[in-house]
Order: sequence, then C-alpha cells, then structure tokens
Amino acid sequence: MEYQAPERDAYFLLFDLFRAGEIWSAIPAFADFSEDLIRAVLAEGGRLASEVITPTNQLGDQQGCVWQDGLVTTPPEFKPAFNELTAGGWLGLAGNPDFGGQGMPKMLACLVEEMLWAANTSLYLYGTLTVGASLCIDAHGTQAQKSTYLPRLYSGQWTGAMALTEAHAGTDLGIMRTKAEPQADDSYRITGTKIFITGGEHDLTENIVHLVLAKLPDAPAGTKGISLFIVPKYLVREDGSLGERNGFASGSIEHKMGIRGSATSVINYDGATGYLLGEPNQGLAAMFTMMNYERLSVGIQGLGAGELAYQQAAAYARDRLQGRSPTGPQNAAGVADSLLVHPDVRRMLMTQRAFAEGGRAFALYVGLQLDVAKYSPDDGERRKAQALSELLTPVAKAFLSDRGFEGAVMAQQVFGGHGYIQEWGAEQIVRDTRIAQIYEGTNGVQALDLIGRKVLSNGGSTLRQFVDDMAQSEVLEEFQADLNEAYDRLVRTTASVTERARQDPNLPGAVSTDYLDLLGLTVYAWLWARMAACAPNDDFGQSKKLTARFFFARLLPRTLALEKSIAADTSALMDFVGDQF
Amino acid sequence: MEYQAPERDAYFLLFDLFRAGEIWSAIPAFADFSEDLIRAVLAEGGRLASEVITPTNQLGDQQGCVWQDGLVTTPPEFKPAFNELTAGGWLGLAGNPDFGGQGMPKMLACLVEEMLWAANTSLYLYGTLTVGASLCIDAHGTQAQKSTYLPRLYSGQWTGAMALTEAHAGTDLGIMRTKAEPQADDSYRITGTKIFITGGEHDLTENIVHLVLAKLPDAPAGTKGISLFIVPKYLVREDGSLGERNGFASGSIEHKMGIRGSATSVINYDGATGYLLGEPNQGLAAMFTMMNYERLSVGIQGLGAGELAYQQAAAYARDRLQGRSPTGPQNAAGVADSLLVHPDVRRMLMTQRAFAEGGRAFALYVGLQLDVAKYSPDDGERRKAQALSELLTPVAKAFLSDRGFEGAVMAQQVFGGHGYIQEWGAEQIVRDTRIAQIYEGTNGVQALDLIGRKVLSNGGSTLRQFVDDMAQSEVLEEFQADLNEAYDRLVRTTASVTERARQDPNLPGAVSTDYLDLLGLTVYAWLWARMAACAPNDDFGQSKKLTARFFFARLLPRTLALEKSIAADTSALMDFVGDQF
Repeated sequence: MEYQAPERDAYFLLFDLFRAGEIWSAIPAFADFSEDLIRAVLAEGGRLASEVITPTNQLGDQQGCVWQDGLVTTPPEFKPAFNELTAGGWLGLAGNPDFGGQGMPKMLACLVEEMLWAANTSLYLYGTLTVGASLCIDAHGTQAQKSTYLPRLYSGQWTGAMALTEAHAGTDLGIMRTKAEPQADDSYRITGTKIFITGGEHDLTENIVHLVLAKLPDAPAGTKGISLFIVPKYLVREDGSLGERNGFASGSIEHKMGIRGSATSVINYDGATGYLLGEPNQGLAAMFTMMNYERLSVGIQGLGAGELAYQQAAAYARDRLQGRSPTGPQNAAGVADSLLVHPDVRRMLMTQRAFAEGGRAFALYVGLQLDVAKYSPDDGERRKAQALSELLTPVAKAFLSDRGFEGAVMAQQVFGGHGYIQEWGAEQIVRDTRIAQIYEGTNGVQALDLIGRKVLSNGGSTLRQFVDDMAQSEVLEEFQADLNEAYDRLVRTTASVTERARQDPNLPGAVSTDYLDLLGLTVYAWLWARMAACAPNDDFGQSKKLTARFFFARLLPRTLALEKSIAADTSALMDFVGDQF
Repeated sequence: MEYQAPERDAYFLLFDLFRAGEIWSAIPAFADFSEDLIRAVLAEGGRLASEVITPTNQLGDQQGCVWQDGLVTTPPEFKPAFNELTAGGWLGLAGNPDFGGQGMPKMLACLVEEMLWAANTSLYLYGTLTVGASLCIDAHGTQAQKSTYLPRLYSGQWTGAMALTEAHAGTDLGIMRTKAEPQADDSYRITGTKIFITGGEHDLTENIVHLVLAKLPDAPAGTKGISLFIVPKYLVREDGSLGERNGFASGSIEHKMGIRGSATSVINYDGATGYLLGEPNQGLAAMFTMMNYERLSVGIQGLGAGELAYQQAAAYARDRLQGRSPTGPQNAAGVADSLLVHPDVRRMLMTQRAFAEGGRAFALYVGLQLDVAKYSPDDGERRKAQALSELLTPVAKAFLSDRGFEGAVMAQQVFGGHGYIQEWGAEQIVRDTRIAQIYEGTNGVQALDLIGRKVLSNGGSTLRQFVDDMAQSEVLEEFQADLNEAYDRLVRTTASVTERARQDPNLPGAVSTDYLDLLGLTVYAWLWARMAACAPNDDFGQSKKLTARFFFARLLPRTLALEKSIAADTSALMDFVGDQF
C-alpha cells in the first residue's frame, strides 16, 4: 500500500477555512508559530508517515505479535520505524514545554495524528497511548511525577498504557475488583487482572508506564470508589534510571480481527507497586483526561483509515480497465474503460471522499476548541470552547470511526474480488478500522454520553447555542436552504427528544445512536458549505465544491430517515421481553 | 459458536404466510410432499447443521486450507462433515428426479441452504457450487452429460466449480482470453488461467467438475463469443469410472479476509480436455443458469450469517451483566443488569432480527417464484413468476447480503471488545460474510442489473405490476398507511428514474444502489405487514408483531433518504474529472 499525506487539504483547512494563523496570533502560547513552521512540520510528518511508517503496515499485519513467557515481540520492522517516530519528537508535539514537550497546537497534532494512524494503525497505537498517558500525568501528577515521566514519554523513551477493563467489567467500570493497598512508603500494592490492555507489554521501549484503575480498601461502591495509579513496568530510581522489574506481567495476548501488530495483553498485577495519580477515589475523572484525548484520537484513527482506503480505491479505479462508459467508450484504444467511468463506482469514491474531507474538517474544529479551551487568554472563550469540545468529543469518536469503517468497506468494494484478498491491503484496512468503533467506549456509549451528559443534562441549551453559532457562518449560497433545513431538523429533534425523555426514561437510549448521526451529518453539512465558500479558484477548489455538492445531494438526505426513526416511541423496543430475543 | 436452525420461523413462513401446502397441492410435481414430510426434512436439516456442521466452523477458520504442489488440503474436520452432508442427499434436494435428485421445492431448499450457510459458510461453498453446476448441466447438457454428471453431483461424490474470472477480466467477462480448440474427437483443448476459483481444487471428493468459460477460435468479440465447457479434474470413462488426470492444476490459493476453509484457487488450464455444454458462443447465457442460482444462494449466505450473528449476540446480551436499566435495577441481586435492559442494545438486536426474519420471508418468496416458474401447470403463472424471479434475484443477492453484513457488524458491536477477538466467533462471521457482497457479481453489478435489465428495459412495467400485486395482500391494518406511502414512493421514484434516464445515460448507474435498497426495504415492509397479519396468538406471534412494528418505525424510514438521494442529478458525480479522484 502507498499513502500520501493530505497536506494540501491540511493547509486549506488550517489557513483558509479556520484561519488558524489569526487564531494563534491571539494566543500567547502559540504566537511564535509561523505559518512556515507549521507547513514544515506537516511536510516532515507527511514524509515520515508515507516513507518510513507506511512500508511497515502490511508486514505488521502479516507477522503479528508473538507472546512467549510473558514477553511480547512486535513485528521486526516496528522497532526501527518507532525509533524514527520518537526521535523526531512527534509524541511530544503538543506536550507541555516545561517538561520537554513542544507545546504546539492540538489542531496541528490532529493532522499529524491522522497521518500516523493512516500509515500504520497498529504501530501508532503505541504512540497515541503514550501521548494520552502524558496528558493525564501532566493534568493530575505531582511535580515529581511530571519530572520523572513526562520527558521520557514525550521522547518515546518509555510508552504509556491504560488499564481499565476487567473480564467482567467493561463499559461498567464501577464493578471492577482490582485492589490497591496502601504501603508504609506511600506507594500502593496493586493486585488484580486487567484485560484488553493495548501496548501493556511489548519490546519497543525499555519501560512501559501503566495507568491503572483500582479500588482502595475503604473505597465507596461503584464509580465513586475508583482511584488511578502509575504502575511502571520497571520501577524508577530517584535519578530516573530503571530499577527492578515491577510485579506484573502479560498473561497472554489476544488473537484479533485486526491491528495485529498491536499487542493486546491480559495483565496480571500481582502486588505490583503503584503510585497514586491525582486524588483518592477520583480516578475515573482523572482517567477521563486520557480517555477524552483518546476518544478524539480514535475518531481520527477512523478518519486516517478512511483517507488511506480512499486513496487505495481511487488508484485502483483509475488503473483497472473494466467495462465501458454508459455514454460510450472513453478509452477506445484499450480493451475497456477505467472503473472511473462507472457512476456507481464514482458514488462509492465520492462518498468516501466526502466523509474523509468532511471528517478532517470536523476533527480540526474539535482540535481548535481544545486549543482555545486550554490556551485562550479570555475566560469566556475558554469556557465556551470547553463546553463545545465536551459536546463534540463523543461525536468525533463515534461518527468519525463509523464513517471511517463505512469508507473502508466501500473502498474494499471498489476493488471487487481483489478487495477480499490480503495482497492489496483493502481488507486489512477494514479489519484494522473496525476496532475504532469498539474501544475507548463503544460508539453506543459515545451516543449515550452525547445525549445524556451533553445534551439532555442542560435541556439542549449547549446544542442550541452551537446551532446558533453555526448559523452565523459564511457559506456558499447554493447550500443555504438545505443547511437551514438541517439546522431546523436538528433543533426540532432535540426539542422533541428533550420533551419525550421526561416521560420515558428509555427514550434517550432508544434514539441515542440515530441522534448522534443526525448531529454528525448536520455538522459535516455546515463544514462542507463553509469549505465550498472559501475554496480557491483552482482544481483543488473545484473538487471541494463538487464534493460539497455531492454531500448535500447524496449524503445529507440520511437526516430525513434519522428524524423519522427518532420520532418513534420506545414500545417496539422495550415491549419485547428478554426471552423473546 | 452454537447455532439453532430457525425451524419455528420456517414453518410459520411456509405454512402460515405463504400457504405452501395449498400451492404445492396444485403443482403435480409436488403433490406427494406432505406437510409432515417437509417438517421432517427441515428438522433433519436443522440437526445436521447445528450438530454436525456448526462444530467445524471456527476450526476451519483457524486452520484454513493448505496448498502444496498443486494440491489443496482442507481443514481436517471438513471431510467427515461434508461426507455426512452428502450422505443425506442434501445436495440433490431440489435436483432432477430422473437423475437421482429428490425434486423437492426450491422454497424448502432455500430454508435448508440458509441452515448450511449459517453452520459453516466455507464448508457449504463446496456444496452450493455443486448444486449450481448440476442445475446448469441439467438445463443445458446432453442426455449423456446428465447421466454421467448429475447423479454424482447430487450425491456429492463429485463437486462442481465455476471458472469465469481472469486476472484482467472480472465483471467484464467479454475481454477474457482463455481459449478452446476443437479436437477430432469432439472434445476441446482448454488453455488459459482463471482466478478466484472457489473449490477449484480440494481434497473432499474424488473428482471436481469445472464449468469453464472460454473462447472458440472463430468466436465473435465480447460476451457474444463465449462458450461453456465441462472440464473434469479426472476424465470420466464411459462406465463412469475415473480415467486419467486432466491437464489443469491449482497454481496457488488466495489468502483471504475470511471463508478461510474454502480454497480459492488460481487454475492453470494447460490444454485440458473439455466438453461443450450447450451451444457454441452461448456460454454466458448458459452459465447464468448457474449464476442466477448462485446469486439467490449467496443472498441466502448473507441471511444465514445474519441469523447466526443475531443468535450469538442475543445470547451474549442475555448473559452479560453490565450497567443498570434506565428505569432502575432489574437484577438487584446481581452486580449489574443484563445488556438486554439497554435500549441501544435492543435497537441493535431488533435491527438484526428484523432483517434476518424479513430476509427469510423474502428469500422464500423468491424461491416460491422459482418453483412456480418451473413447475406450475399454468403457462401464464409460469411466465409471471419467471419475470418476478428475474426482477427479484439481483435484489435477493445484494439486499440480503448487505443486510447480512450489516447484521453481522451490529452483532459484533453488541459483544464490545469481545467481538473483536477470535475466541467468540463474532468477528469471523463479519469476515466470512463480507465476501457475499462481492462475489457472484458485486452488489453494484446486481443493482445495475436490476435497474437496467429488469426495470428500465420494460419502462418499469414489471415493477409496477409487482407493486399492484403487493397492494392486494392482506396486511395488519396498523401498517397499511405506511405501506401505501412506501408503495407510492417506490412507484414515484421508478417513474422519475425512467423519465430522467432517457436524457442522461449516467443516471441509472448513479442511482442504482440506492434504488435497489429502496425496493428491498419496500418488499420487506410488505412482507412484515403480511407476517404481522397472520402471526399466531402466542409468544412467537407477539414477537413477530413487535418486530414488524420496529421495522416500520425504525428501518423503513431509510426510504425517505433514498428517495431524496435518488432525486439528485448526476452532475456532482460526473463533473469530477478522473485526475481529481
């Protein structure tokens, strides 16, 4: 597989659509980052992704990880590629400059992440968990913890892992059993078994920093009794050098549908030494610093996969000669025309493209909110951006990964039979992408988070405010009427759900997934209409406008179905008694 | 994985919905088949599927097929299971009684096929190709060819394979290069390389009967110059015993996303001996006898997979304790409630169920048309059923397989992280089912066949006739208004497409996939409204009615989006120039 980082689109989104230069110049922390610097970073990230990391992607899938006696060997090509990734400082791109991070905008990091996900999802999983762990320690750690861990995570000398799930406790973390017993030296003894631990054991780095959720002896029941601990694979001496092996090990790794180069371990903590991160019993909230980062990142995984799959399918469709155009031969000298003459093939490619480019704009918009929420000098702006990022994070995780999977499956379809065999790579993208809809909270859980905590909890006011803000944007006139209709549909549906949820506690869960899709499509429509308005007068800009037109004509209509489906009451769902399933 | 054949639903569909007993008693060929006999056949088929074949399903995926020196070894559990399948005569169930077939109705065969697909897709592929080959030989063979091949295919002593695709010629068979040179003894020398040959080489049976498309020396260009040949792996002596090895071999097998127990070969025909089947240059039409059978069968593959996946997901949801009901604890003594209390989980399960049961009714309806078209003593009935089966075959192939994949992916989602690891089997169903959307003509090709050859070719009159017939049915009053609206939408859309296609040759291909989905959903709605009307007053009937209600409330609304999407003109699709992709 080949992969070209979408640099042209990245520049367009940053500088034409979102005018990032203006935004950053108003943020002291970013004022020194020139447009030239940003372009140089993206170009170098793109080179790394396409030239160094992409060549390891299919090899990693074929070889997988090997577990023996508690140790995991990653595919042999991974280590040199990971070393080059970390040597460039890419895991510290948006990290805290006080501890060795580069303090660059999240918007930029989103673009680089997309490239790394696309280049090799399995390999970048070791990276994204490291970035997430550093964010969590930066937000909740003591000064000493930050000094010890952050520089080594930013540099990729060590990696991170998050240990939440137990065999009986997945979405429902409140019932977890792993325990943490206080020791005389202020450390804790961690005992329990966690499953599905991505990067919990591997051979890429000298140390692995586990962030583990566990219960203190006197902890309250449920999610209010969960604390967070730093549990490094090798204990760390005061000077930062590695001490003895900590008391945990990988019991096995999973055989998975995809991401086969990413080692997913069962980890047995057998009185392992851990250090409290943040406050006792506040672990779940602290872990959510990491989870929220990972949720956006996993959405971007879907985005990268959708882009990668699109590139493969478009290249195949260009080269593959099969059949003739409905309007007569276009390649009369050849035995057949290229697949691109077939409208149904174009429908598939345009769908992938509209979701990939719309998704990139959406991911960047969420990244922009995170930047403003963290760095704006203005209190009100920070609060508003924070609320918006909270509203949109579950949408980004679920909608981007769902559309990434949809795009990957469609790309595979363009390949016909060649899409089903391993050789071309299309089927690997489908397998690797499928997990993004499941981990970091299933997409169903994201939808419940959206409708419950982000919409209904404030009677829909954050949502209405967001729609009001969207409606202020400059969009291409051609799309204004459809867009207004989409806003109305979203607001009307939100009001109806809010009203009906008061009478029927099952209503939010019954409509949550459809509601998330309705919101996602509406936001994409808004972004497409804005992109069309500021598209340049060149070939690139013409493609944007045509893709926007396709989105409005062929994809936005899905909102009609969603509104109608959401309007149904819950009886057909809930009247079914358990035995009938 | 466990699997229970859906016998209760099968009886309901046969005897309550379609009143098969009455239909069969009017068909002389079926008059002897009592309801008791049919029930006994289904019960025995269900036992075979769940007890004998299902246990080989995951093992086959894990072990795959092994190629060495032109020979293929199937997973070791396959041979005894295949022997039991063939010993029961199941491959001759609907076969010609003059040559050892049992002559039973296609409706019954559809139900048995679903069970066999669900039990082990890879294993049953060896069977379905055998049934398809026997159909083709029965329709186009000489008396001698029938006598030689049919009894041995019906008994499963030999299997069948179809060889169409070449590396450069997939959907576009007209450009194939394999040649057939006439020999003095009326045989032909077949030379060329075919790819993607399912069951082209394996170790389950002593002989394999290839049906190969090739070109005679003086053949016209394109699809009008293709002939069909019987090319057995071992030549057959006059007494039916096996002679020398024929001149072809498997060059390799594919490494595929799924159906890993099914060997997909590259076959090199190196002057192999072949025998013309049917008329010279009429091979594609003759092969379509097999293809049309396989298309319905592959649709049923999707149906079986959707049912199997649903059963796994429902069982997991029942047992898995996670979280609490929105209305308060339902299992207060346990650490959590079962997944079934969550409306979003129910939404996924009900979607799978509505598509599986709706799909079963649809497959049987198509099977009924095939029975009437073949066996009815009434000319007019035969012609009408033939037209209807031709209209609905592409829908059955594509819509059943698309919904099967959708259901399998949703079932995997119900499992959460456990759906992504191999242990539980949910991910295997997704991988195995994906191919059904691709082979036997991609689903995009089915949609083009539907809109071009079956709808536009007669100005939409077959379609309108079908809608008029549907509108005569007795349905549950509750659904009548929505159903009328769905009929109107389909007729209105058909008229619009017919009209616009006259001006724009790209229009049919631009809307074909959406149109097929619109038709599929409308037919399912009709069947659900009929099923609800004749559902018995018991627990089973109550489930049917609730599922019908769910279908109308939550799934039929997709037709709103499809109508709107189909209404778009083709400019956004076709104005994109090739380089812009």
